[in-house]
Amino acid sequence: SFSLGESHTDYPTTYSPEVLEAFDNKNPGKTAWTTFVCTEFTSLCPKTSQPDFAKIFINYIADKKMVESKSLKLYLFSFRNHGDFHEDCVQKICDDLVKLMNPHYIEVIGEFTPRGGIAIFPFASYGSKKFEKLKDERFMNYAPGKYSMELSKLY
Amino acid sequence: SFSLGESHTDYPTTYSPEVLEAFDNKNPGKTAWTTFVCTEFTSLCPKTSQPDFAKIFINYIADKKMVESKSLKLYLFSFRNHGDFHEDCVQKICDDLVKLMNPHYIEVIGEFTPRGGIAIFPFASYGSKKFEKLKDERFMNYAPGKYSMELSKLY
Amino acid sequence: SFSLGESHTDYPTTYSPEVLEAFDNKNPGKTAWTTFVCTEFTSLCPKTSQPDFAKIFINYIADKKMVESKSLKLYLFSFRNHGDFHEDCVQKICDDLVKLMNPHYIEVIGEFTPRGGIAIFPFASYGSKKFEKLKDERFMNYAPGKYSMELSKLY
Amino acid sequence: SFSLGESHTDYPTTYSPEVLEAFDNKNPGKTAWTTFVCTEFTSLCPKTSQPDFAKIFINYIADKKMVESKSLKLYLFSFRNHGDFHEDCVQKICDDLVKLMNPHYIEVIGEFTPRGGIAIFPFASYGSKKFEKLKDERFMNYAPGKYSMELSKLY
Amino acid sequence: SFSLGESHTDYPTTYSPEVLEAFDNKNPGKTAWTTFVCTEFTSLCPKTSQPDFAKIFINYIADKKMVESKSLKLYLFSFRNHGDFHEDCVQKICDDLVKLMNPHYIEVIGEFTPRGGIAIFPFASYGSKKFEKLKDERFMNYAPGKYSMELSKLY
Amino acid sequence: SFSLGESHTDYPTTYSPEVLEAFDNKNPGKTAWTTFVCTEFTSLCPKTSQPDFAKIFINYIADKKMVESKSLKLYLFSFRNHGDFHEDCVQKICDDLVKLMNPHYIEVIGEFTPRGGIAIFPFASYGSKKFEKLKDERFMNYAPGKYSMELSKLY
Amino acid sequence: SFSLGESHTDYPTTYSPEVLEAFDNKNPGKTAWTTFVCTEFTSLCPKTSQPDFAKIFINYIADKKMVESKSLKLYLFSFRNHGDFHEDCVQKICDDLVKLMNPHYIEVIGEFTPRGGIAIFPFASYGSKKFEKLKDERFMNYAPGKYSMELSKLY
Amino acid sequence: SFSLGESHTDYPTTYSPEVLEAFDNKNPGKTAWTTFVCTEFTSLCPKTSQPDFAKIFINYIADKKMVESKSLKLYLFSFRNHGDFHEDCVQKICDDLVKLMNPHYIEVIGEFTPRGGIAIFPFASYGSKKFEKLKDERFMNYAPGKYSMELSKLY
Amino acid sequence: SFSLGESHTDYPTTYSPEVLEAFDNKNPGKTAWTTFVCTEFTSLCPKTSQPDFAKIFINYIADKKMVESKSLKLYLFSFRNHGDFHEDCVQKICDDLVKLMNPHYIEVIGEFTPRGGIAIFPFASYGSKKFEKLKDERFMNYAPGKYSMELSKLY
Amino acid sequence: SFSLGESHTDYPTTYSPEVLEAFDNKNPGKTAWTTFVCTEFTSLCPKTSQPDFAKIFINYIADKKMVESKSLKLYLFSFRNHGDFHEDCVQKICDDLVKLMNPHYIEVIGEFTPRGGIAIFPFASYGSKKFEKLKDERFMNYAPGKYSMELSKLY
Ligand SMILES: [Ca+2]
Ligand SMILES: [Ca+2]
Ligand SMILES: [Ca+2]
Ligand SMILES: [Ca+2]
Ligand SMILES: [Ca+2]
Ligand SMILES: [Ca+2]
Ligand SMILES: [Ca+2]
Ligand SMILES: [Ca+2]
Ligand SMILES: [Ca+2]
Ligand SMILES: [Ca+2]
Ligand SMILES: [Ca+2]
Ligand SMILES: [Ca+2]
Ligand SMILES: [Ca+2]
Ligand SMILES: [Ca+2]
Ligand SMILES: [Ca+2]
Ligand SMILES: [Ca+2]
Repeated sequence: SFSLGESHTDYPTTYSPEVLEAFDNKNPGKTAWTTFVCTEFTSLCPKTSQPDFAKIFINYIADKKMVESKSLKLYLFSFRNHGDFHEDCVQKICDDLVKLMNPHYIEVIGEFTPRGGIAIFPFASYGSKKFEKLKDERFMNYAPGKYSMELSKLY
Repeated sequence: SFSLGESHTDYPTTYSPEVLEAFDNKNPGKTAWTTFVCTEFTSLCPKTSQPDFAKIFINYIADKKMVESKSLKLYLFSFRNHGDFHEDCVQKICDDLVKLMNPHYIEVIGEFTPRGGIAIFPFASYGSKKFEKLKDERFMNYAPGKYSMELSKLY
Repeated sequence: SFSLGESHTDYPTTYSPEVLEAFDNKNPGKTAWTTFVCTEFTSLCPKTSQPDFAKIFINYIADKKMVESKSLKLYLFSFRNHGDFHEDCVQKICDDLVKLMNPHYIEVIGEFTPRGGIAIFPFASYGSKKFEKLKDERFMNYAPGKYSMELSKLY
Repeated sequence: SFSLGESHTDYPTTYSPEVLEAFDNKNPGKTAWTTFVCTEFTSLCPKTSQPDFAKIFINYIADKKMVESKSLKLYLFSFRNHGDFHEDCVQKICDDLVKLMNPHYIEVIGEFTPRGGIAIFPFASYGSKKFEKLKDERFMNYAPGKYSMELSKLY
Repeated sequence: SFSLGESHTDYPTTYSPEVLEAFDNKNPGKTAWTTFVCTEFTSLCPKTSQPDFAKIFINYIADKKMVESKSLKLYLFSFRNHGDFHEDCVQKICDDLVKLMNPHYIEVIGEFTPRGGIAIFPFASYGSKKFEKLKDERFMNYAPGKYSMELSKLY
Repeated sequence: SFSLGESHTDYPTTYSPEVLEAFDNKNPGKTAWTTFVCTEFTSLCPKTSQPDFAKIFINYIADKKMVESKSLKLYLFSFRNHGDFHEDCVQKICDDLVKLMNPHYIEVIGEFTPRGGIAIFPFASYGSKKFEKLKDERFMNYAPGKYSMELSKLY
Repeated sequence: SFSLGESHTDYPTTYSPEVLEAFDNKNPGKTAWTTFVCTEFTSLCPKTSQPDFAKIFINYIADKKMVESKSLKLYLFSFRNHGDFHEDCVQKICDDLVKLMNPHYIEVIGEFTPRGGIAIFPFASYGSKKFEKLKDERFMNYAPGKYSMELSKLY
Repeated sequence: SFSLGESHTDYPTTYSPEVLEAFDNKNPGKTAWTTFVCTEFTSLCPKTSQPDFAKIFINYIADKKMVESKSLKLYLFSFRNHGDFHEDCVQKICDDLVKLMNPHYIEVIGEFTPRGGIAIFPFASYGSKKFEKLKDERFMNYAPGKYSMELSKLY
Repeated sequence: SFSLGESHTDYPTTYSPEVLEAFDNKNPGKTAWTTFVCTEFTSLCPKTSQPDFAKIFINYIADKKMVESKSLKLYLFSFRNHGDFHEDCVQKICDDLVKLMNPHYIEVIGEFTPRGGIAIFPFASYGSKKFEKLKDERFMNYAPGKYSMELSKLY
Repeated sequence: SFSLGESHTDYPTTYSPEVLEAFDNKNPGKTAWTTFVCTEFTSLCPKTSQPDFAKIFINYIADKKMVESKSLKLYLFSFRNHGDFHEDCVQKICDDLVKLMNPHYIEVIGEFTPRGGIAIFPFASYGSKKFEKLKDERFMNYAPGKYSMELSKLY
């Protein structure tokens, strides 16, 4: 049966930060939050190549640039056959997005499903000079689940 | 920012059963259930033209034909500016799909959000001669929520 | 601020089964279930006149007549200042709707909030001669919550 | 069956900020919060015209003017056939309400359902000179879900 | 069957702030919070006289006086046939309790169920001179649901 | 503060089946289910006299007699300082109610909280000659939670 | 701090079915269900000796004998350092209890937490000659979760 | 069947603060939080002697002394046949524990189930001179449910 | 950091039914259910190669052979870069397992997350001659979610 | 059936802090949070040797060293047959990890299941000189559940 997805798009088969695209923020003056949730992120364990699964939350305050959502989707899908530890996946997403759009502030949270009874949730964040205070405050008050959201609320 | 949706598809702006398409069932011999859930169905109240919202569950056992999923999506979206009572929307969906693919059996459930403290959940079903017994059994044991699913399970 | 409700409708201030209206079933041939949920039913305790609150579920299979939804809303609101035990409210709703539209089958479930740690959930049902078997089967398999639905699913 | 909705009201078929009406705040001295939740907001994707769905939360502190609730309902419904990105819908609602009633403070949150596994939740806010500090504090402590509410609590 | 409620108490049939009674706080020295939750509050829409329903949360810090709980119950029930907008019901409850017991601080939150897809949650608060700072802090950090509680926790 | 409970009622301090009262069923012809839920049942462990806690569900089909609800409340509270194993408490409640009103059918379910990681849920039922088939069917299809209800649904 | 547990009891350190004790059923005539839930069962994987965790549900209909609850607790704890596959643990518990008390019917369900994204839920059951029909019916209608209960209901 | 509880312990039948025992804190230097949750607290209404039920949360920072957990269990059970208003039970628990171990800080929260649709949640706290600031901060930011926890998380 | 997964295992990168292994059923006489849940199944859309995600439930009654769990894990992971429609993935899993172990009965359920507001849940089943009746009964009574389980129960 | 776990690893059978291993933090400059959740922690009661069960949350900010995840898993499993009070288990885990990697900050939370209706949740934390302020802030704002996460979110 014809698929529910869009027309044909070539999804990168290896980790490809170069697919990320930005566009000019229409309201650079206004500081606004944008939250992206990747409900189905998957990568591979670098040691055992066993698949890992997570929900990835990206909260950021744009400056002049904003990440183009479809390109972000392709970029996150490009981790599919990429081997990396949970912490490094989260740090990479944070660094790549900082490089792309130099936001005022960004935080990335990974809620990975447990393996052998142990679950790991990395949190990485970046703030420009002007948003130092905001970054430190949020860092000090961090808690697992605090800057993410219960997705079962959506339905 | 570039949209998350597919490439451009012209969504019918009026109720358009003609957009429905079927294809040949690859496993006609095997009786298998297929469930479609439209998590975000919306139509208009015929009297007040106030928008109504529902989750629509479609459970059916295909015979020779199967409904093509993308065409079903367009068809369900075509109720967007269409005025009809809850019961009639559900009955129309059931009748249109029966006409399209003459399934062994099909049931359609609408879980509409309340208006003025009253919610209405219509249930319509159709069974071919051979599936009479199955239709009657399921009809007798019907209960609101019984043949639908708690979508918050998905995330 | 102008209210969210409809234009002015005079809500009966006493128990008024006479406000119930029926209309002709467009699909008398087809047996279909219709479920009405009154998410906010309230009546008074006949002994202490303390307010009681419940969710009322009405599942019925129409024959020639169907209850007109707005009139059902007014009728259910008319219990607001009416004193009756939980069981009698549920039995009254069942009897009044049977008198109105002589359905093939109807069941009414009341899920009243507890008083002094005790909650009471009455269940009443009626089936015409032809639907005797269905009525007995459903009666035998009854359980609290079985023919009602978890309303938190709706949002 | 007669609809559950109000009497006939003509719902605007295109984005119509002009339907918004305000009235004088009876308690201008007292600073009080008012929260509006639109449980069923829908608009169209500007690129693919595919329908988008969200819960919209509006928390504001009125100054001299307050938005009239029924007009707010019509205004939010007027996005139904309007093409705009998630962020721009949220920013428009914020700007239009600021223009209407010049509140002390207002924040608008959109919780859009995912497309292709990615969900976007925009947050926009405005504060008058006197409420600068409150605006910055809330902005700094923002988190997805923090200023919205789990609507399944209501039933 | 004999009701679950108490012995006969005459519940006021009109809005009656005069039924409120206070008693002397046994521990005036100690600042302690008391939370009252009215799980089933109902009033009428002033325009359409359609019933409205809400959960009302009252958090207060008593000074010399405390509100007597049974009188509070009668007072809240006295809104049953009273027409008022959501915001005004909440503001009235706050003002009446301030007049009764002149508390250090009090906040009243109304979580009304939606009408036509729109829900309104008013928040009103009062603090004596000495508790100015506490009032402003709580006002600045307010969020829908933040000072109320998920009642499904109780069972 | 004046209590929320009713006027003074002397609660039996020892297990007192004699407080149970019945009244004549107004609708003996009609077979209807009545469900009582005691949300807060407590008794003592006969060996260690440590308090035990449970939710008790009573589903019954009345014949000529019905148990008077307030007397049922007093009877269930009379287990407060009574020592008995979980199974025997449940069996006693079933037997006492059968003796009182000789119902067509009754089932009693106890959902006791765990002790040392082990929870015990007894189920007892009784059916008159005429309701033998119903009793056996329900007995055969029993499952923990099946004939009870998730009480968090109520709020 | 003095422990919450009972006085000293020597817990077997190896799998010890011999600790199981039975006592005479006081109501052999009456067929009643008893459900034991072990909320915290743990054993070891026979291949990797990694700990496994599950909730174990035991539903049984006693004949002349009943398993003494404290001995059942010790017996289930005796799996703590025992290596066995999920299916074999569940089958052992079923067989050992059949040998102990020769019940009319018993079913044992294990809901093990996932390892590497895969969870395994074994179900074993036994019925005496007289309860053949009941065993087959329940076996035919089995589904994961159907004969167990959502333990979060308890609090 | 032999009980799940510990060996025989004589539970006080009247309110007995004298059963409380303390022991020396092994880590007096380190400030650490300890939380006790009494999932099943019950006392009597002083006016009507009707049983009341609650979850009691005790969060404290020990100084030189710590309360011995089994003695705390006996002490909390000693309220079983004791008549007191909700606020006074909570205040008594706070005062008795302060007298016993003179902690740096302690807060006691009672979440009582509703009576007649009204629920009362008292909060009492005490801080030594050195922990004044912490006491005031927590008092200012208090909200029902904020310092307690959703116990359904445990299973 | 060293991974949580097992030692190195080479995960097939293409759809590989040949990795499936069976072993002899130790209790061929006893009919027992085994349920495998793959909490994190992912495949590709054949048209757009966009990733799809689902929970896969496999309930089966073994005859002489049983599927070896680790090989099942590798087999399910081998869909990772495989393009197929939801229905065909589910049908393939059912057919491959039937070919492997010729079970008495097997059913496979896929709960795929929605795309563009539409979710698809295919159900396929197979029964040997002797288990025809069981297959038909379960097929007739099927409902989405009925033979699967709410995985949030596990934690 | 071959187990789901990894290849053979010898799990320590006694409390073995020596199995803990650290590795160099690749991003020492960046302060990032890492959260480990042990969904299935078990130890023994020192008085009665009855098994205790908990979820352990470890939130820490690494300095030069990071704990190697598989060694942390083995270390936490090594409590399996170790007798210690809840508070001491939590304090040990905190101290051992501080000794291993001298982090900027670490907090350890234990959510133990109740025994005899009482549950204990210890919280221990450590901060280096430079992170004194962060430690005190988080200590002051602590609440049970605040720095842990509802694990049912994961599925
Ligand atoms: Ca959150
Ligand atoms: Ca929901
Ligand atoms: Ca369902
Ligand atoms: Ca239901
Ligand atoms: Ca919230
Ligand atoms: Ca809250
Ligand atoms: Ca149930
Ligand atoms: Ca709920
Ligand atoms: Ca609820
Ligand atoms: Ca169940
Ligand atoms: Ca609960
Ligand atoms: Ca909390
Ligand atoms: Ca299920
Ligand atoms: Ca849970
Ligand atoms: Ca949390
Ligand atoms: Ca979930």
